[in-house]
Amino acid sequence: MVQRLTVLFLFLTAGTFPASDDVLTHVAKHADRFAAISRQIWESPELGFHENKSSALLQQELAANGFEVSAGVAGMPTAFTAKWGSGKPVIAILGEFDALPGLSQKDSPTESPVQVGAPGHGCGHNLLGAAAALAAVAIKEELQTSGLKGTLRFYGTPAEEGGGGKIYMLHAGLFRDVDAVITWHPGDSNRVNLNSSLATNGGSFTFHGIASHAAAAPERGRSALDGAMIMLNAIEFLREHIPQESRIHYIINNGGSAANVVPAKAEVTLIARHPDANIVSAIWERILKCAQAGALASETTFEFEQGTNYANVLPNDVLSDILGRAMQKAGGYDFTPEEQQFAEQLGRTLGGAVKTPGPSHIDVSKNEGVGGASTDVGDVSWVVPTAQFNAATFVPGVAAHTWQAAACAGSSIGRKGMLVAARTLALAGVELFQNPKEVQAAHEAFEKRLAGRNWTTHIPTNGRPPLDYAVR
Amino acid sequence: MVQRLTVLFLFLTAGTFPASDDVLTHVAKHADRFAAISRQIWESPELGFHENKSSALLQQELAANGFEVSAGVAGMPTAFTAKWGSGKPVIAILGEFDALPGLSQKDSPTESPVQVGAPGHGCGHNLLGAAAALAAVAIKEELQTSGLKGTLRFYGTPAEEGGGGKIYMLHAGLFRDVDAVITWHPGDSNRVNLNSSLATNGGSFTFHGIASHAAAAPERGRSALDGAMIMLNAIEFLREHIPQESRIHYIINNGGSAANVVPAKAEVTLIARHPDANIVSAIWERILKCAQAGALASETTFEFEQGTNYANVLPNDVLSDILGRAMQKAGGYDFTPEEQQFAEQLGRTLGGAVKTPGPSHIDVSKNEGVGGASTDVGDVSWVVPTAQFNAATFVPGVAAHTWQAAACAGSSIGRKGMLVAARTLALAGVELFQNPKEVQAAHEAFEKRLAGRNWTTHIPTNGRPPLDYAVR
Amino acid sequence: MVQRLTVLFLFLTAGTFPASDDVLTHVAKHADRFAAISRQIWESPELGFHENKSSALLQQELAANGFEVSAGVAGMPTAFTAKWGSGKPVIAILGEFDALPGLSQKDSPTESPVQVGAPGHGCGHNLLGAAAALAAVAIKEELQTSGLKGTLRFYGTPAEEGGGGKIYMLHAGLFRDVDAVITWHPGDSNRVNLNSSLATNGGSFTFHGIASHAAAAPERGRSALDGAMIMLNAIEFLREHIPQESRIHYIINNGGSAANVVPAKAEVTLIARHPDANIVSAIWERILKCAQAGALASETTFEFEQGTNYANVLPNDVLSDILGRAMQKAGGYDFTPEEQQFAEQLGRTLGGAVKTPGPSHIDVSKNEGVGGASTDVGDVSWVVPTAQFNAATFVPGVAAHTWQAAACAGSSIGRKGMLVAARTLALAGVELFQNPKEVQAAHEAFEKRLAGRNWTTHIPTNGRPPLDYAVR
Amino acid sequence: MVQRLTVLFLFLTAGTFPASDDVLTHVAKHADRFAAISRQIWESPELGFHENKSSALLQQELAANGFEVSAGVAGMPTAFTAKWGSGKPVIAILGEFDALPGLSQKDSPTESPVQVGAPGHGCGHNLLGAAAALAAVAIKEELQTSGLKGTLRFYGTPAEEGGGGKIYMLHAGLFRDVDAVITWHPGDSNRVNLNSSLATNGGSFTFHGIASHAAAAPERGRSALDGAMIMLNAIEFLREHIPQESRIHYIINNGGSAANVVPAKAEVTLIARHPDANIVSAIWERILKCAQAGALASETTFEFEQGTNYANVLPNDVLSDILGRAMQKAGGYDFTPEEQQFAEQLGRTLGGAVKTPGPSHIDVSKNEGVGGASTDVGDVSWVVPTAQFNAATFVPGVAAHTWQAAACAGSSIGRKGMLVAARTLALAGVELFQNPKEVQAAHEAFEKRLAGRNWTTHIPTNGRPPLDYAVR
Repeated sequence: MVQRLTVLFLFLTAGTFPASDDVLTHVAKHADRFAAISRQIWESPELGFHENKSSALLQQELAANGFEVSAGVAGMPTAFTAKWGSGKPVIAILGEFDALPGLSQKDSPTESPVQVGAPGHGCGHNLLGAAAALAAVAIKEELQTSGLKGTLRFYGTPAEEGGGGKIYMLHAGLFRDVDAVITWHPGDSNRVNLNSSLATNGGSFTFHGIASHAAAAPERGRSALDGAMIMLNAIEFLREHIPQESRIHYIINNGGSAANVVPAKAEVTLIARHPDANIVSAIWERILKCAQAGALASETTFEFEQGTNYANVLPNDVLSDILGRAMQKAGGYDFTPEEQQFAEQLGRTLGGAVKTPGPSHIDVSKNEGVGGASTDVGDVSWVVPTAQFNAATFVPGVAAHTWQAAACAGSSIGRKGMLVAARTLALAGVELFQNPKEVQAAHEAFEKRLAGRNWTTHIPTNGRPPLDYAVR
Repeated sequence: MVQRLTVLFLFLTAGTFPASDDVLTHVAKHADRFAAISRQIWESPELGFHENKSSALLQQELAANGFEVSAGVAGMPTAFTAKWGSGKPVIAILGEFDALPGLSQKDSPTESPVQVGAPGHGCGHNLLGAAAALAAVAIKEELQTSGLKGTLRFYGTPAEEGGGGKIYMLHAGLFRDVDAVITWHPGDSNRVNLNSSLATNGGSFTFHGIASHAAAAPERGRSALDGAMIMLNAIEFLREHIPQESRIHYIINNGGSAANVVPAKAEVTLIARHPDANIVSAIWERILKCAQAGALASETTFEFEQGTNYANVLPNDVLSDILGRAMQKAGGYDFTPEEQQFAEQLGRTLGGAVKTPGPSHIDVSKNEGVGGASTDVGDVSWVVPTAQFNAATFVPGVAAHTWQAAACAGSSIGRKGMLVAARTLALAGVELFQNPKEVQAAHEAFEKRLAGRNWTTHIPTNGRPPLDYAVR
Repeated sequence: MVQRLTVLFLFLTAGTFPASDDVLTHVAKHADRFAAISRQIWESPELGFHENKSSALLQQELAANGFEVSAGVAGMPTAFTAKWGSGKPVIAILGEFDALPGLSQKDSPTESPVQVGAPGHGCGHNLLGAAAALAAVAIKEELQTSGLKGTLRFYGTPAEEGGGGKIYMLHAGLFRDVDAVITWHPGDSNRVNLNSSLATNGGSFTFHGIASHAAAAPERGRSALDGAMIMLNAIEFLREHIPQESRIHYIINNGGSAANVVPAKAEVTLIARHPDANIVSAIWERILKCAQAGALASETTFEFEQGTNYANVLPNDVLSDILGRAMQKAGGYDFTPEEQQFAEQLGRTLGGAVKTPGPSHIDVSKNEGVGGASTDVGDVSWVVPTAQFNAATFVPGVAAHTWQAAACAGSSIGRKGMLVAARTLALAGVELFQNPKEVQAAHEAFEKRLAGRNWTTHIPTNGRPPLDYAVR
Repeated sequence: MVQRLTVLFLFLTAGTFPASDDVLTHVAKHADRFAAISRQIWESPELGFHENKSSALLQQELAANGFEVSAGVAGMPTAFTAKWGSGKPVIAILGEFDALPGLSQKDSPTESPVQVGAPGHGCGHNLLGAAAALAAVAIKEELQTSGLKGTLRFYGTPAEEGGGGKIYMLHAGLFRDVDAVITWHPGDSNRVNLNSSLATNGGSFTFHGIASHAAAAPERGRSALDGAMIMLNAIEFLREHIPQESRIHYIINNGGSAANVVPAKAEVTLIARHPDANIVSAIWERILKCAQAGALASETTFEFEQGTNYANVLPNDVLSDILGRAMQKAGGYDFTPEEQQFAEQLGRTLGGAVKTPGPSHIDVSKNEGVGGASTDVGDVSWVVPTAQFNAATFVPGVAAHTWQAAACAGSSIGRKGMLVAARTLALAGVELFQNPKEVQAAHEAFEKRLAGRNWTTHIPTNGRPPLDYAVR
């Protein structure tokens, strides 16, 4: 998740953190094993909906620690929930574990794929899922020890990179009884804020025309590529007349198969984004009109196949405040000399001065920026009070979806950042079980941000996730 | 009427011409007066539907010669018919008299407007109407003398240059009883053939959007210019997929009024052509789709105002054969030394070698080329057997709609060519009254060319010609 | 100057204002006369560089009050300076007085032009110049009374609406010795802040092609309109790849003259904007490439005629602070019952809820928003420390460049707002003469904002302002 | 080779044919063997430059019949020449043998690939090469028997379908001493005329831009796809302003790889055609300008890779006359009842009435139409007097490059048509050896058609044919 911050100003939160220190002891106890699991997942990077080994590893650990695991939920073989306890409140922790295509990389500071073109953990989800599971185990032990009441639930959420696993879990009603969701994401610094993400919608427009010999009888052909190009030209004119924070980007996947034949088929994949999901929907209506115009003017037809559709993250002021205090208690870390060398060597591949602070720094603010990326955590955040943060798993300056991020995700730096995350989640989780008023306040903050709006999605509720989306 | 010939091959018609020589005596008797009338019209060039003096002059002459004149017919103040005789056959001669905007010119071989920007007779219609009227008078005298039966009718047809006067006369039923139509057009040589013209349709698309400050709130605006540009871009893609002989051309009359305002209004004037009126109609359907696409994609609306819509000329093999024989009898003419000098001086302004034969040459063929221009004689030709020819009123190489043509149309060269036309029309007219079988044969040739198709037009039958079209 | 604020947060400035109250007495003394002058200018709205009466009126008043007037400076007949005093500091007040085309309007709450299509004071510059001159007279009297040292200079700056009068005055060196500039602009509320304006550049691209008959020989033509459309299509693609705060907007002034002729000439007027003048320049380079691409691909040529080129306003923290304190002392005003009725009636024509506070409110902040408009005050602000503010001359919710603004500018509401402005300028002006340290601090704040950058402009230094720009 | 005829009129050639009947006896003798070879080649369809088995089969037969074979000429492993005799005249017969991708088909009247996606003989080149070789063997036997002097040379020309094998043979000087070339092409009727083909030029434009995250930093990217689209939009505008017989068609092979990344690479393959190679070159200059414009406006770069570049066929009046007389003597053939059934069944898959005459019909004319396809025989025809004809190897109505054509090419119908071709070539070949005056007349006719122009090509003379073009 690349962060493009239109930062406003910093506001440092002070205050003490009441939660029990014991949970940090539990984290420490299991830290090595979950670090090893993160490495195991890193070594077998699996694409969305195909995270068989990764999901199984996390399920095993949670089951071994007394969680009740439900596997293959919501029509997705690699999705699961793991429950401990019962009754209210229901506190959820989310864990992702899918990899990205083409980002295969060794844990080395120079570009060096394990296998060219193969998947890799360029978004650090090997760390994400492992840290979240580690926190769940630690919280569970604290609940056991302290006798605090309530349900702790871990969500193993597949295919965040475009497949939208969480959305199918929402459709299946798996979040219906949840009071609060906390999660995190790997990043290049430790930070908690009220940032959002870009809401996004996308998919493929396939135009169908009539083939004809392009030299002998062009007048008998109806070019599907013309349909696509008229649509896309119209999209370019649209840019001026939508809010400036919007994004529309596209590729032409299929622009005809032989230059001497009027193309009978052409395909465009297009994504639209904006910080507000409702505005994305309004823009999408206009994109559809452009597609219709392309078909109309070229006497072709088109069909649309829904792709990724993620809502923007609705930040939660109360949960974010808890996470901020938790992270300040959790603390950052320092590089060893070897890690420092690795970081410097990697930094030189980034081309440009880096202003990000180091991993010992904790940056807690009430910033309301908008990251340049999109996530299905956004959809969850419109249904349940949700908050997330970043931990410094990547060398400062490293962006997600790069070989540098994949290298860090397999290194000791990644594993140290993962521990910052686990400690933060664990502290915050215990806090939520301890203070019912915070849970209630989080709900009120949620309603305030929602301001009467409802979550909507273009992802159909038919229970048939596109299990092959990443391997087509 | 510019001629772009895709000539195939020549076929010279031989044969004698039976019609009485007396009609040529009648032509000669009135020649000077009608030559003077052509000059008078040339000196007061009047735009379409505003040919008040021009129309009145021709009406006066015809009335003075015993024709029964009906003025202001079919809702057009300057349209008229002039009738002599009664019963069958009904033979019609068409006469035009409108001028063109911006072609003011003296009868001089160098560019020299009488008044810059004023109208001028760049298409020689001052000669067209005068020669046709002269022929009508001569035929009438021959009918009177010989006692031949039938009705001779002269049509004073206004606004050929875009206003489509003849179409309103067709709508008014004024051609209903006509058996054959003959007419001519000024040109740079004497020629009779089976050439056609381009069928054409056109008009204006006015897009309506929503104005907005283009810097402060472009997202609130809907650009009418975007609508026009998306339409026109789509038109460009259309070109590949229509028959290659088609033409589509346009201008943007209104492309917004201030660069810092999202244009609420934009206007495109567009013309489509093809040698076949039915194909023009089919292309027009697709042009409308492009306009709809432009409106759809830009969230604007548009309205269409019908402009010129002329059918292609359906040539008539029998009438053309009669005209060919008539012109061979009528003969060409030679330049005087002064005219030769004028022709050479004018020729040097044309930039390029001229291959057109001189005015003494008579070129009769069965060529079926397609001229690059359009005329409402085309519409008449789909309803009544119709034929036309060119006479050498312009210096060889001179195209219509140029200052050179306007200069010739006021010169003695123009008037000599006009006499060739009058003699040809007169001989052919008498022939038609003499030989009922030719009239019948012309009808059969007409049906054959029609091949079961019907004349259609986009020009409404509401009897409200756009009388201000040329002066808006 | 329409204000599009991307407001961040409010920060109210407290603090007392030390300047002498006497200057307010001087303002009061001359208030009626200058209010009458503002009305006189309003009644004879004059377009840019043609403000002969308006400029003369202000010159007369200033001369009558002892100012030394230099008329017709910097090659502009209606530009002038009026000086009083000598030595340092040199404090300048700017006064504009040009009207806008097509905004003729009575002082009535319903749309009602004095003369349809005629100019009108839709930006309230009749008030702008009169209030500035009133303040100058009041400050001069205070300087006279108190014996404070320095030079007070009034700048009569013509043609702010696109003509850029101030830029020619800068080129002529007329601001070389100035220490601080203060000015104001009519608005719908009383406010002082650190807002900027959009830097802008613009002009006309005229494409030249080769005319040809569009039906008979399109292949011989080279369409100037094609050149323009290829350029503009490329511009649409450019939008995605420039900073999102940028604006590019255009019209097609000339899109061909006859649909049956390949256009030999086409003209586009285009404006680019961004909050940073340097980014506008970078975008402009790319716009030129699009124009070159249009010419290259269509085998046409183009020429560019420079239009408006205004820098963004560099706010001055120190001067703005002074103005803020001055306005708080100057105070707002209340509507009479009649004015209230006028305001409500006018408000109903605005279509939408208005959140602007009333004229008794004073809004002082350190906001750094960016207005959606552009002004040549921006250019001055890159050369001399400059600050400006808005006074409530328009009914709340009324935007500039509307008939509603023109109506207010001629009403008692406009004149009351004008007095707020005059009082504020007078207090601030005296303050600057009293406190040399503030002048020095303003200079330091200026250097800080400049950050080593220099003012640049595309407006040529040839001393030939486009005196006919508004009447072409 | 699809035929798009803009036929003018028919002119039947009469006259006797003097050549010896003996050569037909020789054809008959070898007919079965070469028919079997055509079937063998059909059963192993090989793509351009990979015709290893096909080329070897023909070489073997010719060598076995006493021809001197030179294999692997002009840098192409599958190109060869086979010579018999010596001295003047040098008469050449061309034989092609490459298959088309994706046209695998059984010899069945319903669509039925042997292997889906595999190559097939959809242009009947299995028959082309075999008939040409059969004719060569028959002529050689007649030369041997009769003692006629001269050199007979067979050209095994690979990769006609886009690879341009003949052009590399021209570059290698292999046609330098040839006096006349005769060849043929499979078709759906027996016909000889003066038709030409479309000259063509084509290739790939690869644009290079700068990748960037399309949501997070689109302003840092430079889209290669924008470059391609601006180029292609400009191409659409170009269509109006080139001769109407021109063709430009393209596909977008690479339109970006991920919708959330600004495309760093994009590729367009484009072909231009016109009946006149010189006009294709002129149009190509303008296409290059459009590509440059695309790069300029989008701040990208592009590189061009030359593709197919074939000249139009210059027909030869004298050789065509000989072929016409030869075919009239050679005669057509009749379908057996089984073949008739096959033809009818296949005909029903064509969708539309077929007007093509049956295989017993011989259509000899002096038509000068232009087929809708292109061939490297065109290039040969600009260097040596060349003529070709069609024989009825396909069921009437079947176009080349279809599964129907591939089915026929493996059937007895194909083999019967192949014999018509072999007989015609054999008769014409003997005629040329018998009558030196015809050879001289053919040369004069060639010079007349050439009219002082020279053959030019964009295919480089570096002797490195793109041997992998068909399998990339």
